Amino acid sequence: MKPLTNFTKAELDGRIELLRREMLDAEVDAVILASAPNVGYFTDLNDQFPWAVTSRAAFIMISLGGTMSVFLPEVMQTLWREDKPDATIVSWPSPRPGDEGITELAAAINRLPSRFGKIGFEIGPESRLQMTISDWTRLISMTPSFQRVDCSSICMNVRMCKSEAEVARIIAAGEIFGNALQALKVGHVEGVSERALAGKVLSKAMDLGADNENFLAFGSGPGGYHSVVASPGIRELKTGDLFTIDAGIRYSSYYCDFNRNFAVGKATDHILRAYDALIEAVEAGVNACRPGNTARDVYAAQANALFARGFEGGKLGRFGHGLGRQITEPPSNAATDQTILREGMILAIEPAVMLPGGALMVHEENALVSADGPRYLSPLAPADLPIL
Amino acid sequence: MKPLTNFTKAELDGRIELLRREMLDAEVDAVILASAPNVGYFTDLNDQFPWAVTSRAAFIMISLGGTMSVFLPEVMQTLWREDKPDATIVSWPSPRPGDEGITELAAAINRLPSRFGKIGFEIGPESRLQMTISDWTRLISMTPSFQRVDCSSICMNVRMCKSEAEVARIIAAGEIFGNALQALKVGHVEGVSERALAGKVLSKAMDLGADNENFLAFGSGPGGYHSVVASPGIRELKTGDLFTIDAGIRYSSYYCDFNRNFAVGKATDHILRAYDALIEAVEAGVNACRPGNTARDVYAAQANALFARGFEGGKLGRFGHGLGRQITEPPSNAATDQTILREGMILAIEPAVMLPGGALMVHEENALVSADGPRYLSPLAPADLPIL
Repeated sequence: MKPLTNFTKAELDGRIELLRREMLDAEVDAVILASAPNVGYFTDLNDQFPWAVTSRAAFIMISLGGTMSVFLPEVMQTLWREDKPDATIVSWPSPRPGDEGITELAAAINRLPSRFGKIGFEIGPESRLQMTISDWTRLISMTPSFQRVDCSSICMNVRMCKSEAEVARIIAAGEIFGNALQALKVGHVEGVSERALAGKVLSKAMDLGADNENFLAFGSGPGGYHSVVASPGIRELKTGDLFTIDAGIRYSSYYCDFNRNFAVGKATDHILRAYDALIEAVEAGVNACRPGNTARDVYAAQANALFARGFEGGKLGRFGHGLGRQITEPPSNAATDQTILREGMILAIEPAVMLPGGALMVHEENALVSADGPRYLSPLAPADLPIL
Repeated sequence: MKPLTNFTKAELDGRIELLRREMLDAEVDAVILASAPNVGYFTDLNDQFPWAVTSRAAFIMISLGGTMSVFLPEVMQTLWREDKPDATIVSWPSPRPGDEGITELAAAINRLPSRFGKIGFEIGPESRLQMTISDWTRLISMTPSFQRVDCSSICMNVRMCKSEAEVARIIAAGEIFGNALQALKVGHVEGVSERALAGKVLSKAMDLGADNENFLAFGSGPGGYHSVVASPGIRELKTGDLFTIDAGIRYSSYYCDFNRNFAVGKATDHILRAYDALIEAVEAGVNACRPGNTARDVYAAQANALFARGFEGGKLGRFGHGLGRQITEPPSNAATDQTILREGMILAIEPAVMLPGGALMVHEENALVSADGPRYLSPLAPADLPIL
C-alpha cells in the first residue's frame, strides 16, 4: 500500500492548497477525481488496483473547505483508512454493476454547500473518465443542482510544476533505464528478436527497482525504423539495422521517457549524420527550456536545428511533451501549443527526422525548466551512435 | 507491432461474425470500439500506445456490412496499414486537443447506412470510454441522426468464450508466473521488503517472456495480511509472517490471475487449517465450472466449502471472476451474478477467509469451463503451505 517513499505532509497539503486556489478562480465548489494520476498526486496513495480492475472504481472529492472524501470498494477500506486518518472514507460492497459507488458519491455531492453550483470532473483534453458512461449519466441525473465543468486542466496546472522530491523520482527512473540498457551487449543483438531484447532491458529495470507499470516501444529495420510507438515484435535484428528502444520506466509512480538508438554492426554515413543532427536538435530544445519561453519555442528550436543540418522533421505530431505521473502530460512541444514554461516543468525533448526510404530516426532526452537554466534529467546519450 | 503469435485469419473473421450476429440482435448499425481489450480482440493489433499516451486516441468502427474502419494518429498509420491491408485507415495530425479524431469519426458515422439508427459505444458495466468526455459530447452532437447504446456487453458476450489459441496464451502466462515464483528462495525472504521480493518475481517473469503490462499485489503481516489488492510496499518480512503475491502476468496480451501464499519460517495451526480450507474451497469452485451452472453456483460452492470447515468468508465482494485480455472480466462469482457458464469461459476461483485479528487469507487458481469437465489452467499450488 505505502509508496516506496512518501511525500511530506507539507508537500501534500501544499498541493491541495494550490488546487483550491485554482478551484476558486474557476468557481468550482468541489472536484471529483477518479483517475490514477490525479488520485495518486493528491493523496500519495498509489495502488494499481482499482484502475487495473474495471469492475471496481475509486474516487476522491476535494471541496473548497473541509476534509477530503475518499470513495472506494470495501475491499480497499482498511488500508486507506490507515494511511489517510483525516479523510472521510466511504465504501460500498463492490462490484455492484450499474452503481459502482454512484449512490454514495451522489449523496455526498448533494450535501455540499453550493457557492458556485459547479462540480469539476476530469472531462477535458488528455483526460479519461475512470467510471462507466452509464454510471456517469446516472450521477449527473442524481445531482441536478450542480453544473459539471472540466477540472483536468486545473489539476494539470498544479501538477505541471514538479517539486524537488518529484524531480528526484524522475531522475531515479532515468538512472534505472540507463543502467538497464547495459543489458544490451556488443555482439549479442544480431539474430535476437525485438521482444527478447526488450525483455532483457525490462527484466534488469525491475531488478533495479522499477515499478511494474512501464511503457516500452521498439523500432528496428535496415537503415531505419518505421515506427517509434510500436510494441516490440518478433522481428530479429540483422547487421546494418538501426534500432531504438523508447521507454517510460516508472519509479515510485513517476516516469522518465527517453530513447536510445543503436546500430547493429555498422551504420551508413547518412545515419551517422542524422544522429549528429538529432543530438544537436535535442541540445537546442533543452536550451529553450527556460521560464517565460513557450512549448512552441521548444518545438521551433528543435525544428530549426534539424533544418540547419538539412534534415526534414518526422511526423510525430510534436517534438516532445511534459511528463511526470503520466508518460506524457501537457504541454506538447508543437507549433500550436502556446503554454508558457514555468520553473519546475519537465519536458521530454524528442526531435525526429525522415531517413531515405521513408524510415524514421528519433532521439529523446528529459529536461527540467529551472531558474538556473535548463538541466538534463536523463543520463546523456553517447555523442556517437553506439554500434552493438 | 506484430503480436508475439498472430491468431489465424479464420479465428479473427469468426470473432467479427459473432459480433455482427450480436449487433443484429441488439439492432445496432455499427459499434465504435476505443478500449485496448476490444480493439486488440477484434484486430489482433496490440500496441501499448496510444492507450498509455492520453494525448492520443484510436478507434475502430465495425458496421453490419463492409470492411472495418480504423481511426488512428498519423504517427501510427504506417504499421497498421501494413498489418490490416483490408481495413479503411483514417488518420489525423495528433495530438489535436479538443478534437482527437472526432471530426473524422463523426464523418464516418454520418456516412453509415442507417437501418436501426443506433450506434454502440463502450458505456455499460465494466467499460471505460477511451476518449475525453468533451470529445464524446462533441461526437454525439455531430451525429444527431443516431442514438447511442451500450455495446460493451455484446463485445463481452463474444469475448467471454475463449478459443484454444486464447486458452494456450493464458496457460503460458500461468506457467511464466509459476516459474517466476521460483525467484523466492527458502531462507531468503526474512528482512527483505515486499517491494524487493515482487521485483525479483517480476524480473524473472520478464526474462521468461511476459509482456510489460502486468498486475501485482502483495500482502504480508504477522499471522495474515490485511489486503490482497495493495501494491507491494516497503514493509520487510519477519519470521511468523504470512504473505501472498497475487499476479496478473500477461503473455501475448492475455492474463493469468492467481496468487500464492507463503509463511516466513513458521505458521500457526490456525493458518495451516485456513490454507487447507481454501484449497478445498478452490477445488469445490473449480468443480462447479460446468456449462449450464451459473457464476452464482461457483460462488456458492466455495462459500459452502469454507462454511463446512468453520471459516467465515472474507469481504472481497466476490469469490473470483472471468479473465482474458483483462485481468478481471465478467462474470463475477457472486451471489448476485446469474450469468450462465458456457464452454470456453475461464474463471479465476478466489475464496477468502477471515483470520483471528481481522487479517485475511486468500487462495486463487484459474479454471476452464469445458464439455469434458472443469480444467485447471494455472499450475497447482502445493497441498501444504510453503514455508520460506
